[in-house]
Amino acid sequence: MSDPGMTEMTGLTHLNAAGEALMVDVSAKDPSHREAKAQAVLNTQPEVLALLSNGGLPKGDALAVARVAGIMAAKKTSELIPLCHPLPLSKAQIDFELGDDAIRILALVRTLGVTGVEMEALTAASVAALTLYDMIKAVDKRAVIGEIKLLAKSGGKSGNFEAEA
Amino acid sequence: MSDPGMTEMTGLTHLNAAGEALMVDVSAKDPSHREAKAQAVLNTQPEVLALLSNGGLPKGDALAVARVAGIMAAKKTSELIPLCHPLPLSKAQIDFELGDDAIRILALVRTLGVTGVEMEALTAASVAALTLYDMIKAVDKRAVIGEIKLLAKSGGKSGNFEAEA
Amino acid sequence: MSDPGMTEMTGLTHLNAAGEALMVDVSAKDPSHREAKAQAVLNTQPEVLALLSNGGLPKGDALAVARVAGIMAAKKTSELIPLCHPLPLSKAQIDFELGDDAIRILALVRTLGVTGVEMEALTAASVAALTLYDMIKAVDKRAVIGEIKLLAKSGGKSGNFEAEA
Amino acid sequence: MSDPGMTEMTGLTHLNAAGEALMVDVSAKDPSHREAKAQAVLNTQPEVLALLSNGGLPKGDALAVARVAGIMAAKKTSELIPLCHPLPLSKAQIDFELGDDAIRILALVRTLGVTGVEMEALTAASVAALTLYDMIKAVDKRAVIGEIKLLAKSGGKSGNFEAEA
Amino acid sequence: MSDPGMTEMTGLTHLNAAGEALMVDVSAKDPSHREAKAQAVLNTQPEVLALLSNGGLPKGDALAVARVAGIMAAKKTSELIPLCHPLPLSKAQIDFELGDDAIRILALVRTLGVTGVEMEALTAASVAALTLYDMIKAVDKRAVIGEIKLLAKSGGKSGNFEAEA
Amino acid sequence: MSDPGMTEMTGLTHLNAAGEALMVDVSAKDPSHREAKAQAVLNTQPEVLALLSNGGLPKGDALAVARVAGIMAAKKTSELIPLCHPLPLSKAQIDFELGDDAIRILALVRTLGVTGVEMEALTAASVAALTLYDMIKAVDKRAVIGEIKLLAKSGGKSGNFEAEA
Repeated sequence: MSDPGMTEMTGLTHLNAAGEALMVDVSAKDPSHREAKAQAVLNTQPEVLALLSNGGLPKGDALAVARVAGIMAAKKTSELIPLCHPLPLSKAQIDFELGDDAIRILALVRTLGVTGVEMEALTAASVAALTLYDMIKAVDKRAVIGEIKLLAKSGGKSGNFEAEA
Repeated sequence: MSDPGMTEMTGLTHLNAAGEALMVDVSAKDPSHREAKAQAVLNTQPEVLALLSNGGLPKGDALAVARVAGIMAAKKTSELIPLCHPLPLSKAQIDFELGDDAIRILALVRTLGVTGVEMEALTAASVAALTLYDMIKAVDKRAVIGEIKLLAKSGGKSGNFEAEA
Repeated sequence: MSDPGMTEMTGLTHLNAAGEALMVDVSAKDPSHREAKAQAVLNTQPEVLALLSNGGLPKGDALAVARVAGIMAAKKTSELIPLCHPLPLSKAQIDFELGDDAIRILALVRTLGVTGVEMEALTAASVAALTLYDMIKAVDKRAVIGEIKLLAKSGGKSGNFEAEA
Repeated sequence: MSDPGMTEMTGLTHLNAAGEALMVDVSAKDPSHREAKAQAVLNTQPEVLALLSNGGLPKGDALAVARVAGIMAAKKTSELIPLCHPLPLSKAQIDFELGDDAIRILALVRTLGVTGVEMEALTAASVAALTLYDMIKAVDKRAVIGEIKLLAKSGGKSGNFEAEA
Repeated sequence: MSDPGMTEMTGLTHLNAAGEALMVDVSAKDPSHREAKAQAVLNTQPEVLALLSNGGLPKGDALAVARVAGIMAAKKTSELIPLCHPLPLSKAQIDFELGDDAIRILALVRTLGVTGVEMEALTAASVAALTLYDMIKAVDKRAVIGEIKLLAKSGGKSGNFEAEA
Repeated sequence: MSDPGMTEMTGLTHLNAAGEALMVDVSAKDPSHREAKAQAVLNTQPEVLALLSNGGLPKGDALAVARVAGIMAAKKTSELIPLCHPLPLSKAQIDFELGDDAIRILALVRTLGVTGVEMEALTAASVAALTLYDMIKAVDKRAVIGEIKLLAKSGGKSGNFEAEA
């Protein structure tokens, strides 16, 4: 198969041959340094974005609240995603890029562990975006969160991955 | 202002005049029946969707795992979203609509409470989508979660809301 | 059907007609005072029980630790049991009855709520029993927890229930 | 002492000489591969078991919900059992064996850690059983959960253990 | 007894006559509006305080992080304090007063519930203070948190309380 | 700078150059044995202390409940303190020293990890003190918690620390 993102088509790793869910065995894997970057984008209106920031600078606590929510969510990932292994996170960071009518949330997570931190990065970005939505929903219920995706990962035997720009 | 989704442009309800975050006072509000519907969409590839279901029917536990994750996340919303009030949920339901290269997650949440359940429905849909991503990520790291949005809400003094189709 | 414990044989209340799990709608139910009593029994050996108590009196913190664990577990029930509604518990109590080679854990839980507290009482008794097992497992790995059952419930429209002795 | 399950009769490992509870020091222990198997049994009626499955095959989400609940509970063990050490679980699996009037829940847990995973396996089996009870309680309040016990453990300096059949 | 803060000297409300802990029965109490204010004080050095703020204005995210931590801790109180009843918080707010070598954390919590929110306010103030300590501990390990106390409470049948200035 | 407790005055380790909070990168650090001791003091009245203990001996479950609360809080530290790394605790212990009108809570925590356990020890002592306050608040709302501070730490590259007596 030519698509490097599609490594095995025979089945889902989290289900056994009978289709039953399990938290798969990773006890034979050695810990290695792993990193994942993910994003989410909150699409709203220019006037609403202006409430969150002012000339690119934070205005009040809004962005800090979302940043904290994202970092804390990264640590809660294995409680939220049923088949995720708990991992000792060694770094979690949330950054924001403000556009005209959208704000992009970037999450970076690292571990020295036996599984990757893709889900931690995706969960952090998603919860940060939901937290921003919560703060603006009284002024824009139509805001939409989208483009939640993995940007890059490194470490582990499945090798590195980078999404095309 | 003509856009019914933009009710006040003067500030964010979760920040005080100094820009400081707080969990706002809802003690003067009477409990009422409230409902919210939200969605998330997981975009992947037809071969991957075929791993999750077969002719529209679940294949193994995959959809059930995501359904449970979404319902449990609805109950965790006030732990994840810092300024959300805790609410006694009276219903939580997750449905899936399978398309050719996407699966749409629909979350419905009800409460008899003093604040709306928009965040609970959005969080449930998002976590169910992330759980599906977790199960397919070994075969499609390029899957993207998008179109997370509120579909409808009812109850509460701010009135009903329905997103245009 | 003559068995008062078997009220409907047509299906499970937590699954819809398609067999899909949901947290069922209780928004039409009025809050009422509800109570449930449940038990668990830890079967071990007389010498081990003597480590937990002395002439019926607690010896050290062991019983207190299990009591606290049971009470805290009652409050965590809706986090553990996926389709349970969160409830505002108004009382939780754990009692112990020491026999020759067994200790019986009794849990009593009350709420003013829209669903019963059977699961809270059963969860409290179970976790208290597991906590006792944890403390004695170095001296008796063969201890067995059994007879976890509902003893009585009252309140709610399904009426009262009492297990035969 | 002849009983291999009774290794020390002088006291409980989780209490100090004054009878005070503590989370004991395991910092001198080296991580090793550890595994534990435990079970719980839900005793109900044939008609009720038929609601959970059909000819040995899953019917709807019921078993999947209990499986997910058990796996997530394994990850929550150190939050529930006060003196348990947190452990990085490397595998968690729940299986069901359907009998005529009972369903046996088998939990298997692995870690590469400094303490055993007996409590994780027992907690997973117990919570999966409680989750099944929750789904059938409207049709059989008299169902009883029993025979919660450790089946086997391996790894760690206390050596292997296997319950007799 | 002349001290209005000492209302009953006969025993502790959370222990029964045998000295056993329980979550006491509040099912006969009617919900009422309740409020509590509490404080904690972090004592450090002027140079360290200057890192947290600048001329009374926040400098970076430090105070926002502590504010969010305090609000989220208020919602977690019944998980942390074993015998506390879960309560539906209707407001939670954290304020800071910066002195020369100390920062005072003020927590205000409201509920419409059957028990008071003293513990929620005290827990919020304490966790906000601990969060500030966490951020400054690399520069001042000698910082001390003190004067954690209830400032005022209102609502409930035990009447109002206000600490002398 | 001569004060050994003030190691760097240039900034806060948990904020980047732009003042934004993050969970800092510890992935380059090697795990080492670390220990921290912290205290909190609950100041109340002699008659109230007599309710908690009798002649220095525990009276009922009160001290055991606080001990358990402190140990469980140590394990929850990274959930409460937003920028704390999760750590695998290898020991947690709470001791009490009863004075005439105060009770001193001592917390000792160990890990084999990449960051120190100061926050775990401080959180454990604080939550144990809050739990004692909860039990006595009906008889002494004026009780004050103070002197929460780090007593000693060892392990890690920043070296040992001991507070002067």
